[in-house]
Amino acid sequence: MASTLSEETRFEHILVLNVPFPDTHRALLEKHVKSITYIPSARTPGSVPDDVYRKVDVIYGFPGGLENWAQVPNLKFVQLDLAGADNVVRGTMWHEEQAQKVAMATTSGIHMAPISQHFILTTLALFHRLQEHIIVAQVDKRWGKDDEFGGRAFIQELKGKAVGVLGYGHIGRECARLSAAFGARVLAATSDGRKKPQGGYVGHGMGDPDGSIPEAWFSTKDDTSFRDFLSRCDVLVLALPSTGTTRHLLSATTIGYLPSHAIVVNLGRGDTIDTNALLRALDEKRLAGAALDVVEEEPLPDGHPLFGRNNVLITPHVSGRTSMYFERSIQICVENLRRLRQGEEIWNKVDFKRGY
Amino acid sequence: MASTLSEETRFEHILVLNVPFPDTHRALLEKHVKSITYIPSARTPGSVPDDVYRKVDVIYGFPGGLENWAQVPNLKFVQLDLAGADNVVRGTMWHEEQAQKVAMATTSGIHMAPISQHFILTTLALFHRLQEHIIVAQVDKRWGKDDEFGGRAFIQELKGKAVGVLGYGHIGRECARLSAAFGARVLAATSDGRKKPQGGYVGHGMGDPDGSIPEAWFSTKDDTSFRDFLSRCDVLVLALPSTGTTRHLLSATTIGYLPSHAIVVNLGRGDTIDTNALLRALDEKRLAGAALDVVEEEPLPDGHPLFGRNNVLITPHVSGRTSMYFERSIQICVENLRRLRQGEEIWNKVDFKRGY
Repeated sequence: MASTLSEETRFEHILVLNVPFPDTHRALLEKHVKSITYIPSARTPGSVPDDVYRKVDVIYGFPGGLENWAQVPNLKFVQLDLAGADNVVRGTMWHEEQAQKVAMATTSGIHMAPISQHFILTTLALFHRLQEHIIVAQVDKRWGKDDEFGGRAFIQELKGKAVGVLGYGHIGRECARLSAAFGARVLAATSDGRKKPQGGYVGHGMGDPDGSIPEAWFSTKDDTSFRDFLSRCDVLVLALPSTGTTRHLLSATTIGYLPSHAIVVNLGRGDTIDTNALLRALDEKRLAGAALDVVEEEPLPDGHPLFGRNNVLITPHVSGRTSMYFERSIQICVENLRRLRQGEEIWNKVDFKRGY
Repeated sequence: MASTLSEETRFEHILVLNVPFPDTHRALLEKHVKSITYIPSARTPGSVPDDVYRKVDVIYGFPGGLENWAQVPNLKFVQLDLAGADNVVRGTMWHEEQAQKVAMATTSGIHMAPISQHFILTTLALFHRLQEHIIVAQVDKRWGKDDEFGGRAFIQELKGKAVGVLGYGHIGRECARLSAAFGARVLAATSDGRKKPQGGYVGHGMGDPDGSIPEAWFSTKDDTSFRDFLSRCDVLVLALPSTGTTRHLLSATTIGYLPSHAIVVNLGRGDTIDTNALLRALDEKRLAGAALDVVEEEPLPDGHPLFGRNNVLITPHVSGRTSMYFERSIQICVENLRRLRQGEEIWNKVDFKRGY
């Protein structure tokens, strides 16, 4: 690829901000830019010298202290190190006319592997009653008794189960692919309920770019369709952003559509589930369990009734963390620089109006 | 299939022993046998009436109280409900000449799904530091702090890791297939180190029947090859039977060949790992962690130094349990009856000399 790139299209000056930047990453950028300034930590106004901002045509990382177009007259491209652009594009400058000349990209898709791993991990943890096993071995420091966990048949298998994926984006698609690998059937629910491909950054062999995995699609906007979807789920995974329409999508009413043997896994945003309705359903055994990496109120208050339940697995919004984070973000940056130089569409382009 | 079976080949009388036997299972057997006797619990001599044993040509389940050939003059086939035949074929009758006229089959392969799930579950639990999260949420009943678990990069991914499978049978192959689905590379080690297919009962789409998944094969009998194998593993999974040659295959010496960032998962038999050598390697940080469903001494004594470690996950030899156990064992029985009627090789045939 690189051989077809003309030297004239190289960028002038890239500013690398608020990200780790080992020499291997520098070498990758040097193929696409003439000079590089690296500032490891610059989050407040004034923390990047004026003359540096003035000459950059590319920023990689979080653009700390950037507030108006006079600061960056030459800016052409911003590669964020964030999967969501919402915090950045809240700044008024991104809604002014000049913003239309600048491309911005997120690292959306970068968390596919760890978050989808987390989905499989927590689903299986509930299926194998792992929380109870861990308390016995870690706290009681003893070998569990033969029938303590339900005898010969206590483990549930993903094989043959129906996994409903609510929100069929990067994360939802990788949850679907892994579920299918375990022999589960996949159902997808999106706002319009139509089979759609997925663009942007997708790791090799990951996800479901053409949307071919689900055996059926359902619409969250059609009550009958959404009810049908929920009533078929053995496992429901929520991989939704936080928007006006996703708030309390799982409510007292819709939780009631799930079978009582179903478990719910939330990987997206906490406010997509009505916490009190969830607690009631668990108390009344109308739901078999939940794994929540996100909750409505974060941090969840000490001693909250969601804590301490055998069938509820809580993690503190950490499922997207990964030792591979910055290896992948530099790869997205480099690919986008190549695409810009060759006049191709970039990955994960931010729509400043939509905000992501 | 059933339409090609002649009525004359139906078996006379099947004795169903020591297994659950719902009507759906009875209906399945009725296609292949003329009459059925069901005894839910019969484990001691005399617990099956003499006249019942005398007329049976097939036994499905555990043949309790069976001790000599005079009891079962018409016996042609025994379908055990056990994955291993070792406890049954210890009886002397199975080493007498009459045994050669009888076919016996195990349910080997029946645990593929739950044990392989357990492998993925416990490996990911170590990668995501789930034991610590569970103590925080279940015991402390609080939301973990942002940097408590190692900041933005603490989660390890299976994607890109090298998973070494020691013992490439039913279970090992399904661990390999699932690891590959997560994007891991697979290495296989067997006694002869040669790529081999796997027969017997394999769930649809499961395992690695032709042995095509590993990128390399190694021999446990060749020191150089075995050392090479171990030194390449990020994750080592042991799925070995207990035999003279597998005892302490992981010894002080061979554990030393593993990289210090490696984790070890034992799903097979506890005596394949030297417990004291494992403990020393963990104490000296020459190994990153272990998940043990089996140990040398079972039950592991209360307060044993393996308990209570963040990086050691202990479960009490339960990974093969599954709510699907008897659904699958009846399917194996029915398939074997069909195969016997049509003169085909049965699944999971026991070799009385080898003992499995």
